[in-house]
Amino acid sequence: MNKEQIAERFKELQDRICKALEKNDGKALFQEDKWERKGGGGGRSRIIKNGNIIEKGGVQFSAVHGKLPHKIKDKLKLNADNFYATGVSLIVHPENPHVPIVHMNVRYFELEDGTFWFGGGIDLTPIYIDKTEAREFHVKLKEVCDRYHKNFYNKFKTWADEYFYIPFRKETRGIGGIFFDHLNDDKGMSKDEIFSFVMDIGNLFAPLYCRVMTKNTNKSYSAKEKEWQLHRRGRYVEFNLALDKGTQFGLDTNGRTESILVSMPPEVKWTYQYEILKGSREEKTCQLLRKGINWIG
Amino acid sequence: MNKEQIAERFKELQDRICKALEKNDGKALFQEDKWERKGGGGGRSRIIKNGNIIEKGGVQFSAVHGKLPHKIKDKLKLNADNFYATGVSLIVHPENPHVPIVHMNVRYFELEDGTFWFGGGIDLTPIYIDKTEAREFHVKLKEVCDRYHKNFYNKFKTWADEYFYIPFRKETRGIGGIFFDHLNDDKGMSKDEIFSFVMDIGNLFAPLYCRVMTKNTNKSYSAKEKEWQLHRRGRYVEFNLALDKGTQFGLDTNGRTESILVSMPPEVKWTYQYEILKGSREEKTCQLLRKGINWIG
Repeated sequence: MNKEQIAERFKELQDRICKALEKNDGKALFQEDKWERKGGGGGRSRIIKNGNIIEKGGVQFSAVHGKLPHKIKDKLKLNADNFYATGVSLIVHPENPHVPIVHMNVRYFELEDGTFWFGGGIDLTPIYIDKTEAREFHVKLKEVCDRYHKNFYNKFKTWADEYFYIPFRKETRGIGGIFFDHLNDDKGMSKDEIFSFVMDIGNLFAPLYCRVMTKNTNKSYSAKEKEWQLHRRGRYVEFNLALDKGTQFGLDTNGRTESILVSMPPEVKWTYQYEILKGSREEKTCQLLRKGINWIG
Repeated sequence: MNKEQIAERFKELQDRICKALEKNDGKALFQEDKWERKGGGGGRSRIIKNGNIIEKGGVQFSAVHGKLPHKIKDKLKLNADNFYATGVSLIVHPENPHVPIVHMNVRYFELEDGTFWFGGGIDLTPIYIDKTEAREFHVKLKEVCDRYHKNFYNKFKTWADEYFYIPFRKETRGIGGIFFDHLNDDKGMSKDEIFSFVMDIGNLFAPLYCRVMTKNTNKSYSAKEKEWQLHRRGRYVEFNLALDKGTQFGLDTNGRTESILVSMPPEVKWTYQYEILKGSREEKTCQLLRKGINWIG
């Protein structure tokens, strides 16, 4: 499995995900922008908006290569000049506050000396946390993890808790999921096996999230609930711009800004000391934005 | 002039600015929250919202001290364990897109070994750039700078151009202004003189910005102009969260998050490839979001 083949499979994954999301939304269609990167490579940005369910979403495929920027070289302490990176990355912002925001990413990174690693993950950001739904979500992720290694779920779930944490808010971004990086063949798994795991995670996304969409999209919501959503989206912005390494990597490597920042929600609000009433569903949600919760129970 | 005296003068500056903004707005009043910092010190957050002109604004005073976090120590390459920092920082988000967003900051930093420096600046972010107004703004800043050093304006204007630049957008945040940092007595100016300059900048803010507010607030605006404002505010968020060193310093030193992020606009929008019509005022504004423009002419 060489880098071109991996990129090809990621492209097909992007196709399948877009088709599934379009079908599930039932109204909006993706628009595609193909782009080229000055330093080498390019991608396909697929954007969807103003759907029945999806207010704004982006499913990005990219395969870029070239000189490693100094900033990245120093940050990752790498001893090579040229890199190749390919991946699929997506974020969906639904219109209805009862449908969670979702993010999925699978990626492959290779250096000129042959060093490689995979990374990826899926995480869910409900505006209102439903424990049953959180459980189902984590159970499905665990099923895929368990097929490859008995430690994967625990390890990658903990990693997601750490990664999607906003220290200055003392909150996780949502109910987490799994996150992994630097997965290579030094621990006894072959490159093909790791790639198979990564593709299984990628392929899990559409059925997993479409179920969540369908289940929640017909729930009515109040102006207050919409307001809460707009404020929770603010936390999403804070995480993505101030903390997310993927966003920083993209912006630092002269990635296509409009594709990277399609992750920004369509509409957001910030209020100084937004009031959360005692005993409210909003308060209950905040109480669950913690690391280390065993959602499966 | 010791650190406590500087902090006292900064407090009085906060008082004067708040009074001037309240008077100019004519409706909203600041609410104050006093807070203490775990590691040492504290501050006074003054927040104003839903005024005649000001949709959301914050004028912060803080004087904090304690152990220097490792992250900051490494970043600034400092060889001391304890720091003291005091300053006034403000951002105003007006409701009317014809009134520019404004930011002002004056600050003093001292290490236990007696090393100290001042920093600060004022910069304006119009939603629609008016060249005459931009000129007047820069002329006033230059007048104050010229009273202290013939090179100050050029140096600090260029510094603002560099500092308030968003590389991944290839845009400046607005029309700039002045920005300076690490100003100490090693270049022949006494500490008192530097402080006098810093206070003059601080005291310039209220008359300078109140004039801009008053001049523009009665201009009517269309839905399209409001929409443009909500999108330009997105750039403000991108700068503050992804690039602004002050915000990062605050969040890294366990500052009070609600006070730091009161800089976030009340309402923001992001649209993938927001359309700008050829020859429109929006396009003309974008063309002026460049470094190195001589606004005074």
